[in-house]
Amino acid sequence: MNPERGCFIVLEGVEGAGKTTQIPRLAAWISSLGRTVITTVEPGGTAIGRQIRAVLLDPANTAMSATTELLLYNAARAQHVSEVILPALESGVFVVCDRYSDSTMAYQGYARGLDRDMIGALDGISTGGLKPDLTIILDLPVEAGRERNVSAGKSDRLELESAAFHERVRAGFHELAAQSEHAVMVSADGTPDEVHERIKHAVSERLCL
Amino acid sequence: MNPERGCFIVLEGVEGAGKTTQIPRLAAWISSLGRTVITTVEPGGTAIGRQIRAVLLDPANTAMSATTELLLYNAARAQHVSEVILPALESGVFVVCDRYSDSTMAYQGYARGLDRDMIGALDGISTGGLKPDLTIILDLPVEAGRERNVSAGKSDRLELESAAFHERVRAGFHELAAQSEHAVMVSADGTPDEVHERIKHAVSERLCL
Repeated sequence: MNPERGCFIVLEGVEGAGKTTQIPRLAAWISSLGRTVITTVEPGGTAIGRQIRAVLLDPANTAMSATTELLLYNAARAQHVSEVILPALESGVFVVCDRYSDSTMAYQGYARGLDRDMIGALDGISTGGLKPDLTIILDLPVEAGRERNVSAGKSDRLELESAAFHERVRAGFHELAAQSEHAVMVSADGTPDEVHERIKHAVSERLCL
Repeated sequence: MNPERGCFIVLEGVEGAGKTTQIPRLAAWISSLGRTVITTVEPGGTAIGRQIRAVLLDPANTAMSATTELLLYNAARAQHVSEVILPALESGVFVVCDRYSDSTMAYQGYARGLDRDMIGALDGISTGGLKPDLTIILDLPVEAGRERNVSAGKSDRLELESAAFHERVRAGFHELAAQSEHAVMVSADGTPDEVHERIKHAVSERLCL
């Protein structure tokens, strides 16, 4: 790692795995180690991305084709990389990001069945080749994640997908973790404190923090 | 041509070339020949496309990267092809469309300088390979087009670009017409009636109507 440059850490996982709870805690811990850190979210980490996210998650948009959805996620990512992530990393800031390329591969590739080579080619265009230094995939049985979301009152277009869809997402994340050198699976079972300790351990081990 | 299938006709051109005036007249003429015809518009020909168009043309979105813009136009196109254009053609209906792939190549490729091979690869993904049977490129000097738009009170993010930008768009359209077998340049100079006659002539000659 270039000590002048920030580290790019991504949290991924099925719905209800606890990314929203864990990300600020991870950021607070990194900050306590004396590093400047920002947290951000795909696809809404920019004003333009939030406009795109509204189109993606609008429950009225049931006619959206899988290719349209893929291109919209990539559009939000392109903006996010150029406007937020790259400038932060280049100024030495750590970036903790809620979802990135692996989510697209898991949801649109493994779960919706779009061509994975095509998704990879598109990803190269939208990210300009920027990859995370570390991706933490929070893993939880699909049913447990759905129960967490139902308790939290969350329901959007993606969360209305079938259980089989979310099983394919989860299996996709497992396969991505197995293939990737920069990704690690972390169990999201247990209390927020327990999961936070596992995440700190994974980050310390991989990024020498 | 398969007589069971509709024809796909696209009108392209610089701002103010008169597409909005000419498209309904072309459609009325095709209809008078006994063919069913629909008119549609990129990027707004679907509800989802109109939401994407609002993001693209919002004057507040000055931070939009060129790659984001390209991906958004492609997202709108993917939806337009799958929801409107292909179903119409397959049921024997003629489609007259305001802008399509050549606009992306002219604006994002020739004018903004994005890699044209990359644009072509993305176009293949978003259109699934669907090409127009005929593209009519309405040609007009940039200054004349801007004057028409100013009189009509039009101004959005694209129309606020410099004259040099629109000159590159126009030059791009010229190059695309020279390279393509399905594209023809038509002068947009003169009255709406004069331009309409030229368009009818081009369509009759190419599509045997």
